[in-house]
Amino acid sequence: MEHEIYLDNSATTRQYDEVTSLMAEIASNKYGNPSSLHTRGIEAEKIICGARETIASTLKADPGEIFFTSGGTESNNLAIRGYLDANPRGGRHLITTKIEHPSVLEVYRYLENQGFRVDYLDVDENGHVIIEQLKDKICSETALISVILVNNETGTIQNMEEIASVRDAVNPGTAIHADAVQAYGKIRITPSRIGIDLLTMSSHKIHGPMGVGALYASKRIKIKPLFFGGGQEALLRSGTENVPGIAGFGLAAKMTFERIDENLEKVAALKRRFTDELAASGIAHHVNSPADALPYIINIAFENVRAEVLLHHLEQKGIYVSTGSACSSHKKNRSHVLSSMNIPPQLIDGSVRFSLSGDNSEEDISLTVKALEDIIPVININRGKRSGRQR
Amino acid sequence: MEHEIYLDNSATTRQYDEVTSLMAEIASNKYGNPSSLHTRGIEAEKIICGARETIASTLKADPGEIFFTSGGTESNNLAIRGYLDANPRGGRHLITTKIEHPSVLEVYRYLENQGFRVDYLDVDENGHVIIEQLKDKICSETALISVILVNNETGTIQNMEEIASVRDAVNPGTAIHADAVQAYGKIRITPSRIGIDLLTMSSHKIHGPMGVGALYASKRIKIKPLFFGGGQEALLRSGTENVPGIAGFGLAAKMTFERIDENLEKVAALKRRFTDELAASGIAHHVNSPADALPYIINIAFENVRAEVLLHHLEQKGIYVSTGSACSSHKKNRSHVLSSMNIPPQLIDGSVRFSLSGDNSEEDISLTVKALEDIIPVININRGKRSGRQR
Repeated sequence: MEHEIYLDNSATTRQYDEVTSLMAEIASNKYGNPSSLHTRGIEAEKIICGARETIASTLKADPGEIFFTSGGTESNNLAIRGYLDANPRGGRHLITTKIEHPSVLEVYRYLENQGFRVDYLDVDENGHVIIEQLKDKICSETALISVILVNNETGTIQNMEEIASVRDAVNPGTAIHADAVQAYGKIRITPSRIGIDLLTMSSHKIHGPMGVGALYASKRIKIKPLFFGGGQEALLRSGTENVPGIAGFGLAAKMTFERIDENLEKVAALKRRFTDELAASGIAHHVNSPADALPYIINIAFENVRAEVLLHHLEQKGIYVSTGSACSSHKKNRSHVLSSMNIPPQLIDGSVRFSLSGDNSEEDISLTVKALEDIIPVININRGKRSGRQR
Repeated sequence: MEHEIYLDNSATTRQYDEVTSLMAEIASNKYGNPSSLHTRGIEAEKIICGARETIASTLKADPGEIFFTSGGTESNNLAIRGYLDANPRGGRHLITTKIEHPSVLEVYRYLENQGFRVDYLDVDENGHVIIEQLKDKICSETALISVILVNNETGTIQNMEEIASVRDAVNPGTAIHADAVQAYGKIRITPSRIGIDLLTMSSHKIHGPMGVGALYASKRIKIKPLFFGGGQEALLRSGTENVPGIAGFGLAAKMTFERIDENLEKVAALKRRFTDELAASGIAHHVNSPADALPYIINIAFENVRAEVLLHHLEQKGIYVSTGSACSSHKKNRSHVLSSMNIPPQLIDGSVRFSLSGDNSEEDISLTVKALEDIIPVININRGKRSGRQR
């Protein structure tokens, strides 16, 4: 196998070496249960406090507004169900979008079965929520709006300020939940300034450990736990804290935010290079991600190609990409995100997600385009037909 | 500080070095989202399959009966609520005990508020469930019984066979859930043979990573998820799998079971040494843990001592112990476990939990008894009174 090129960073990232070292040090030499009264317990609690302060500072939030969880999925579930549980008089109407991650969509479907009325907002051809539709749907009964801040398949960034201003105008009592799993650590977000009440983060998308996430919950709102026990995390999230994991997440956040501008600039240049080289290559394709998307995610439809076939040819050259998102790639359904953007089915079937990190290089991009130039003529589904051959 | 003696292994354990190395290797070089279709994803999925097979083999269970979670608390919540959600016609009566961990007790309290009728079984002076009471309470309406297999404060082992045979005789449709967090890896358990339907495990109690646990759910029963998303873990536990954590748990289980008999023998000898040396020391004390308890946990009441004061004096000598359990030690309430065993309040206030691991030595025990001999006369609460001094 040649030099590996990992372009599936929206699925998961390589853990920073510094994070790995820190976690090993804690697990070996600073092991302690934060609930223990002795030095080791207090030391463990301090480690968690430090990570909480780091995460809070990246959002310009109070440490008391940060709650550690086992990951983005749990944070999304906790945000939505925990908020509705704690605010039973907040109305029985909910709003979300048609392009959410399953960990939001499936919760709203569950809530529909529990008697809530849910509106799923359409998006335009760039994947942006249609604000007029939001204005149309939001009402005095709307308890909560969930919106994916950066879409995991296309990188489309939602205008949360505009969404919040519609909320402020119509029903200031409606809470806004942002799924920021793909946004956190890539763009700066200040929830309190924007008017976001709940915000979901995941560690393993920013070179931190798997199995760790966080929820920002504004001190202005009430929220109840998803499950019960020893009352850790200010009673919101019971269970012995994952001390090395939380510390690793804190360090990954610190490192990510130290280079956030530099990385964004670098990755934006990589995206330009990628789309420029693709355009020059003559490969028939459409860039599904809008021009103003987060450049970390580049979704491209290749004409007359089956994305899964392309994925396996690319991996034979050591290049790792994704069809749709990792979370839905095992399912055979067409991407609900690309379908919502009105991309024709035959293009969806040829769509691949290239997701970058600050660790990718210009060479990675050029080698990928070169690989595509080699592979695509070979796997063109019309190739057999054109040449008259059977396979 | 002198040589450290860690006797708080029921709160958390030191991660095995081999586990730390394996996790670092995966996080650095085998990072991949198991849902990704390329090699890295498949490799990650294989790692999880391997860990699942290991855990399953330790219980003589099928791999399909093992579900990974974020820890013991989540597993207990999933077992209880997931089972009741999936079996709505199973009756509205539940049975548990007065000596459960908060992650079970608090769930049952929540369920009482949801309209379930709950009986909390008493225990005798050794902490054993009173079987006659179970016979008295179980009925055709009983959906579920939760019992802590090894109590986390005293080490008392419940007779699950007897509990299961009562269930079989009265209502075979009643499911049995065992919280085996303190039992797993210390004694051999075959849930299918005993008649346990749901069994909770935690990784960080057996020298594996924090933030990982598992639930055994017999294939004979139905269970629903606690939260929703991408449908990982056979739809039961959504969220990107914590690949290094699960692998670490698998390795810790493998290593723990390889030395399970050797460790039990060693720790039993350490317990004998501890109680013998204490008896010889002249320190006024009562062993709260019954003679047939799991020897890993030794709960001792010291007369005329405040346990918290003793804990802090011990830690100044580098000896780490616990008052009650870690999960309740931050609370000021008296131990509900020791209270249920009818231990007088003044003895509960002087009760300390010494919890061992296979890594403790005879020297650790002798140094601890020596430390107790030094400390206890100094902190005796009657000391000031006897000498007539004010403090």
